Amino acid sequence: MRRTPLGASPGYLNIADDALMPRIFVYFFSSTFFEEKQVSNFHELQLYMKKYESQNLQCWIDIRGLGDRELLESLGSYLSIHRLEMEDVVNAYQRPKIEEYDNHLFLISRMIFRRDEELHNEQLAFFLAADFLVTFQEHYEDVLDPVRERLRKGKGQIRTAGLSYVSYAIMDVIVDNYFPILEQIGDRLDVLEDELLSNPDVFTMQKIQMIKKELIILRRSIWPERDKINSLIRLPTEMISADSKIFYRDIYDHSIQLLDLIESYKEVTASMMDIYLSSVSNKMNQIMKVLTIISTIFIPLTFIVGVYGMNFSRTDPNTGKVLVHNMPELYSAYGYPAVLGGMLFIVILLTYYFYRRGWITKKF
Amino acid sequence: MRRTPLGASPGYLNIADDALMPRIFVYFFSSTFFEEKQVSNFHELQLYMKKYESQNLQCWIDIRGLGDRELLESLGSYLSIHRLEMEDVVNAYQRPKIEEYDNHLFLISRMIFRRDEELHNEQLAFFLAADFLVTFQEHYEDVLDPVRERLRKGKGQIRTAGLSYVSYAIMDVIVDNYFPILEQIGDRLDVLEDELLSNPDVFTMQKIQMIKKELIILRRSIWPERDKINSLIRLPTEMISADSKIFYRDIYDHSIQLLDLIESYKEVTASMMDIYLSSVSNKMNQIMKVLTIISTIFIPLTFIVGVYGMNFSRTDPNTGKVLVHNMPELYSAYGYPAVLGGMLFIVILLTYYFYRRGWITKKF
Amino acid sequence: MRRTPLGASPGYLNIADDALMPRIFVYFFSSTFFEEKQVSNFHELQLYMKKYESQNLQCWIDIRGLGDRELLESLGSYLSIHRLEMEDVVNAYQRPKIEEYDNHLFLISRMIFRRDEELHNEQLAFFLAADFLVTFQEHYEDVLDPVRERLRKGKGQIRTAGLSYVSYAIMDVIVDNYFPILEQIGDRLDVLEDELLSNPDVFTMQKIQMIKKELIILRRSIWPERDKINSLIRLPTEMISADSKIFYRDIYDHSIQLLDLIESYKEVTASMMDIYLSSVSNKMNQIMKVLTIISTIFIPLTFIVGVYGMNFSRTDPNTGKVLVHNMPELYSAYGYPAVLGGMLFIVILLTYYFYRRGWITKKF
Amino acid sequence: MRRTPLGASPGYLNIADDALMPRIFVYFFSSTFFEEKQVSNFHELQLYMKKYESQNLQCWIDIRGLGDRELLESLGSYLSIHRLEMEDVVNAYQRPKIEEYDNHLFLISRMIFRRDEELHNEQLAFFLAADFLVTFQEHYEDVLDPVRERLRKGKGQIRTAGLSYVSYAIMDVIVDNYFPILEQIGDRLDVLEDELLSNPDVFTMQKIQMIKKELIILRRSIWPERDKINSLIRLPTEMISADSKIFYRDIYDHSIQLLDLIESYKEVTASMMDIYLSSVSNKMNQIMKVLTIISTIFIPLTFIVGVYGMNFSRTDPNTGKVLVHNMPELYSAYGYPAVLGGMLFIVILLTYYFYRRGWITKKF
Amino acid sequence: MRRTPLGASPGYLNIADDALMPRIFVYFFSSTFFEEKQVSNFHELQLYMKKYESQNLQCWIDIRGLGDRELLESLGSYLSIHRLEMEDVVNAYQRPKIEEYDNHLFLISRMIFRRDEELHNEQLAFFLAADFLVTFQEHYEDVLDPVRERLRKGKGQIRTAGLSYVSYAIMDVIVDNYFPILEQIGDRLDVLEDELLSNPDVFTMQKIQMIKKELIILRRSIWPERDKINSLIRLPTEMISADSKIFYRDIYDHSIQLLDLIESYKEVTASMMDIYLSSVSNKMNQIMKVLTIISTIFIPLTFIVGVYGMNFSRTDPNTGKVLVHNMPELYSAYGYPAVLGGMLFIVILLTYYFYRRGWITKKF
Repeated sequence: MRRTPLGASPGYLNIADDALMPRIFVYFFSSTFFEEKQVSNFHELQLYMKKYESQNLQCWIDIRGLGDRELLESLGSYLSIHRLEMEDVVNAYQRPKIEEYDNHLFLISRMIFRRDEELHNEQLAFFLAADFLVTFQEHYEDVLDPVRERLRKGKGQIRTAGLSYVSYAIMDVIVDNYFPILEQIGDRLDVLEDELLSNPDVFTMQKIQMIKKELIILRRSIWPERDKINSLIRLPTEMISADSKIFYRDIYDHSIQLLDLIESYKEVTASMMDIYLSSVSNKMNQIMKVLTIISTIFIPLTFIVGVYGMNFSRTDPNTGKVLVHNMPELYSAYGYPAVLGGMLFIVILLTYYFYRRGWITKKF
Repeated sequence: MRRTPLGASPGYLNIADDALMPRIFVYFFSSTFFEEKQVSNFHELQLYMKKYESQNLQCWIDIRGLGDRELLESLGSYLSIHRLEMEDVVNAYQRPKIEEYDNHLFLISRMIFRRDEELHNEQLAFFLAADFLVTFQEHYEDVLDPVRERLRKGKGQIRTAGLSYVSYAIMDVIVDNYFPILEQIGDRLDVLEDELLSNPDVFTMQKIQMIKKELIILRRSIWPERDKINSLIRLPTEMISADSKIFYRDIYDHSIQLLDLIESYKEVTASMMDIYLSSVSNKMNQIMKVLTIISTIFIPLTFIVGVYGMNFSRTDPNTGKVLVHNMPELYSAYGYPAVLGGMLFIVILLTYYFYRRGWITKKF
Repeated sequence: MRRTPLGASPGYLNIADDALMPRIFVYFFSSTFFEEKQVSNFHELQLYMKKYESQNLQCWIDIRGLGDRELLESLGSYLSIHRLEMEDVVNAYQRPKIEEYDNHLFLISRMIFRRDEELHNEQLAFFLAADFLVTFQEHYEDVLDPVRERLRKGKGQIRTAGLSYVSYAIMDVIVDNYFPILEQIGDRLDVLEDELLSNPDVFTMQKIQMIKKELIILRRSIWPERDKINSLIRLPTEMISADSKIFYRDIYDHSIQLLDLIESYKEVTASMMDIYLSSVSNKMNQIMKVLTIISTIFIPLTFIVGVYGMNFSRTDPNTGKVLVHNMPELYSAYGYPAVLGGMLFIVILLTYYFYRRGWITKKF
Repeated sequence: MRRTPLGASPGYLNIADDALMPRIFVYFFSSTFFEEKQVSNFHELQLYMKKYESQNLQCWIDIRGLGDRELLESLGSYLSIHRLEMEDVVNAYQRPKIEEYDNHLFLISRMIFRRDEELHNEQLAFFLAADFLVTFQEHYEDVLDPVRERLRKGKGQIRTAGLSYVSYAIMDVIVDNYFPILEQIGDRLDVLEDELLSNPDVFTMQKIQMIKKELIILRRSIWPERDKINSLIRLPTEMISADSKIFYRDIYDHSIQLLDLIESYKEVTASMMDIYLSSVSNKMNQIMKVLTIISTIFIPLTFIVGVYGMNFSRTDPNTGKVLVHNMPELYSAYGYPAVLGGMLFIVILLTYYFYRRGWITKKF
Repeated sequence: MRRTPLGASPGYLNIADDALMPRIFVYFFSSTFFEEKQVSNFHELQLYMKKYESQNLQCWIDIRGLGDRELLESLGSYLSIHRLEMEDVVNAYQRPKIEEYDNHLFLISRMIFRRDEELHNEQLAFFLAADFLVTFQEHYEDVLDPVRERLRKGKGQIRTAGLSYVSYAIMDVIVDNYFPILEQIGDRLDVLEDELLSNPDVFTMQKIQMIKKELIILRRSIWPERDKINSLIRLPTEMISADSKIFYRDIYDHSIQLLDLIESYKEVTASMMDIYLSSVSNKMNQIMKVLTIISTIFIPLTFIVGVYGMNFSRTDPNTGKVLVHNMPELYSAYGYPAVLGGMLFIVILLTYYFYRRGWITKKF
């Protein structure tokens, strides 16, 4: 979490040493025109923008990488962006929000996507004005390629419906990207549910907790996203055309669906933890039952055989005659079978007792 | 969960390969007239509708199956339905909602019904305009047959009170269908409660969790349903006649009753999980008590008989005389009975001790 | 839960086969007049009402038992009661609510009272108009006798303050009837608390859960009751006189007190479950300690006596002389006392060890 | 919980048999004047009040004990107090609340103070009018002595700032009295926390639950107290001078601080229960480890010595020669040391195994 | 928690005996001017302030230490600060809040910072008027040095944007100081998470609970801080310039981010407790399995060897002949190997059984 150093003037841009150098893409377009160019610095950008200045084209400046303070500051003052906004762009851990300024709207969205089993949580900052749209993001990778592609091909109304529609298209693709993540979580929950019923172990539980953590992360992004879209719809601004509000309402519906899914999945994980914990204590019960049955059967038997292993009543040392008939059962012909039979009877009795208590079942 | 592919233009209809071919039913009716016809394609539908065009009849187009993109698109433009609405019809996982358009209301309801022990969760989309009502559903099976039957028979005011009353009748039967599901859940909870008190096992717990999951699914549908009906009542629209609002208020009451029941059942399942868990640890206590009583009684006894099984103090190998009188008790006439008596005394003592601690009860 | 059959026209009255035949009581009264009469059918009722029609008396029709569809329908149309209201009267599982109609208020209350250890949950439906009050209930038994008695005796202002005051008196006695139920629950909780500290068993826990279930039932009735009274106070209607609103505010206070009590009791039951569960695991600890102490002391001792029971080093078979002096301790005069002493030392050592770990306490 | 009997007319005063006889104190005061008098009945009170009637003095009637119905009724009608208010005075289990009447405000506060380790929960009812303040309480003991003292001494502005300031002073001292109770609870929690870490037992848990119960009681009083003060501040009444509202805002702050503290303490008790429960299961783990280590080491050894205690291969009964060399190890010179060595090896092996699994630690 | 004694007049300043003597710093500044002076008492302060009285400079009086009642009272009346405000300054345990007075705003913030592993929770009271800003704090140490430094150096707009901007700078540095505390908590949680998965013990759990307690403390400060900033933004006052409101909105965003983090961390600690508890019961399962496997294998074997240790069937004492062939297996040449083989078979059988139940795994 990179932050402005404590005590710095507000608006100070704290660029990390390992921040990526910006790649600047500019798209000029109208219903019939489309040009895309990558420029390498602020000067080049200014020249390029002057070229199309008075031609009534729409312009999206798409900046990826935040490693150049000079560029950000120049661009900020060129487009009259407040320095606190620019600070939020650089400190890329903001919650989704909307702020209204005199000549533009400032919006934050969070793109979440999975690469190599990891969730990436990337900030996208928008500046939406009457004649330009600027977006900033920290890394080169994002989820916006479908929007760029539609712009290039001019499919649908994306080149004709104004910049607020382009913004909609961007936010829509961002919000729609949450769905496959949640679907994958849903699939993992299904797998874990089977695992829970067949053979739960401590890793099952760790996987459930992992999913719970991802759900917390997702909710932290979507909850304010929903609020943002809602504010945006109610905003009395001419920046957002009335026509595109019906589209924003669609994103709003999607974000509510996402929250709904997340809440359901959280309830499912809670219920799975319940199942896990009770299956753990159930296993313990099984183990204890085995131990108790074995011990309860054999400990008394071992006692009995111990009794007849005692050395009472030896023979007379001089004559070899039995002097003391202490344990006459030892000398009886039926002593041994009687003891064996007695022990068998005890085993049967205890087995029946355990069966009646339900400790021995067919399944066991 | 079928969704529009990422990056597609909004309003693109993503028809699944296994979607059912639509069956189109049209009902024209007035207080004195009723005609029902199944048409096979859009052209036929258009012709049929032209036939009754200016006869002041009311018309319900009842479409089951969403597998024909052309039909949906043609119908959408014919009835001036927004392409985002049509997208919601096709992506049949929407939450219940209401949207107001210039010439019609767009409503989503969710029909939940049980077939073969499974809960089916089917979306019904309504387009309610002044002169037509169109409903779309994904599968052929639904819960609307009682409404169709009342239309055919003309019972009550269903043919005379306008299309907003027909919509009411449909939503009413949908919401009323939740009741038998909850009643069945209530019955299962009663059975499980008995099972919990008599002989709880791990399956009892799984059944409780299954019910909890169904309650989550039901609440996810009824909660927004209630909000939808509430918005509908407060909507300042002439689409809903003032007379029928009193009926919608009745559905609203029912949906609150359903939520109330669901919340109560959720509390009951939570309380049942508490009972289950404490009965599991109670069982464990019982098992441990048996083990401890048996071990505590027999382990010391086994030690004692072990003592008298020791080979101390043999006879003189030459003369056979006892040279070392190490264990004189072995040669005493009272040794054996004394040891047996001592062990009996220990058993009585320990039994009394366990009885006093409450480990041995009459029930045991 | 009796409900209108699915698909029936709204307002259809679904009378159960075992519904009780109505007993109809009519009370006419003014400050100076009181007459009470039981009539047996609608015709008789109509005649009786005509008798006092223009005499400026107030009238309460008190109907107990809902088993006669004809009576309900006739009365409904005679008093211009909406058929959906009548449906709510018959489907006697409604939540407390208030509905305003042109010429009357429709109210539902729930009477809860304990008979033979069971909670009875009985619906009372009110129709309060300018010149009549009609109440419907499902069974003959109720909690309204004190109100009827006050009407007969003319105590207080009950005969003079109008029908909205009579309604107040009825609702007041209904709400006040919740107090003894909660007091009894409070007493049972006190008893259970003592049981928990002295000798908790699985029945204690079941009783706690039983109380929790009753609290859920009570809250389900009082929560909407409170909302109902609150709406009633804020209702801009001349049906409720301004004077009686101060009385309704009193019921409102009582219902808040009841909810408050219920919430406190729920927190108490949760805390009792905590105590129960930890006392169960505490007992388990006690049991395990006994087992461990006994086993840890006697298992090593049994091993030692086993060692000296081994048959090593026999005498020479020919001469009887000891050939192999493998276990010389067996032949020493001090062998036996040394082993006994050694075992005593082990017992003392282990006892001290357990004492130091706090497993053996004075209490034990 | 004393309540008006079911079915009694509203406003009936249900005096308990053991209610204390009222002690009536009257304070007349102005900035320069103070007189305090105890009167014994209503008549005396009336006379005394007449004496100062037109002298523009302020009057506080301070009534302790509610055992005299006649006094309460006379006073109620003398000061035009509504009979429902008087009922609330007598049924002294009301929640803190405020009610506005034409000529006075009716307020309920709850004084909570600790005497002899018990929490006393005493109701104080206020009637605040332009020219008098009447307070009722059930018992003689209360927390208001500091206010009476300040009145007597005329310290600060208490005699000059009006009766709404006197009311403030009373409520302020009531709310401030909650602080020492919570501080004491905080101290007890600190002590319990140390106990939990050093030597938790079942009494620690009971003490935590006791504190939790006291916190529930306190919150039940302070939560509505806060609401009451808030309503009072927003009340558009001339009964409360604008100047004193700044003081009421101070009580409001205090009540929020109290709620804040209570919530924190509740979270602390929850966290302590967590620690308790996991330390119980930790102890169980320790016990089980000891048992398992001892058993696992000695049970196999006992088996081995048992093997060599078997009576196989006797000598020839006639010649004394060994006929069957079944167990030759018994006759070998190295048999006994080899077995002892083998057993030592097993002990070392198992000890190492337990050490590797972390069951035997230095601490153990 | 120092409080005004019970029953003292409101506004009484209760100075603790160990309160620090105030250090008074005064800063006069404008865009071009800066002077900083430490004065030692109220008289000196008054003189110094008179010096710059009419020079249109801005003034911040920065008082550290509250041990001098006279100074506080003199200053209070000199700057017309209400005595209840001064009481809040001295009773330094207030929640963050804002109060509006005629000529100034009164604000409370809480500075939380970590020194020597301890969280310090220090109150800062602000009085913000048109021409002066006074801050009070209890101890000498604080987090405001960066603001003082910026004032001295005149960096940014801090000397030119008015006192409401200076207040902003102070609150901003206070709120930003929460971030490193939470980051450190986040780091500790990461470490604990690894500990949980590798080798959890009772100290892990205590550390988790410690963090939970710190989170409770932090939330208690930030929650009202957020409300305060929000009220401040909405306050219709000229004390806060419109320009600086955009900056306050920035603090508001930060406080929401902080709350968001705290909530997430609380959910993480809850989930870690779940992992801890289930890993404890998992360990118990492991221990029980070892015990059960050992016991189940060796207890039956010990029984068998006990059987053949019994002393049945001795020789004739006179002739030395075997009279009773009770246990013929003892004299058979194959008796001993058969018993050994039988026991081996039992071991293999039980091992296979445990393997099939999953109790013996490769990992074990």
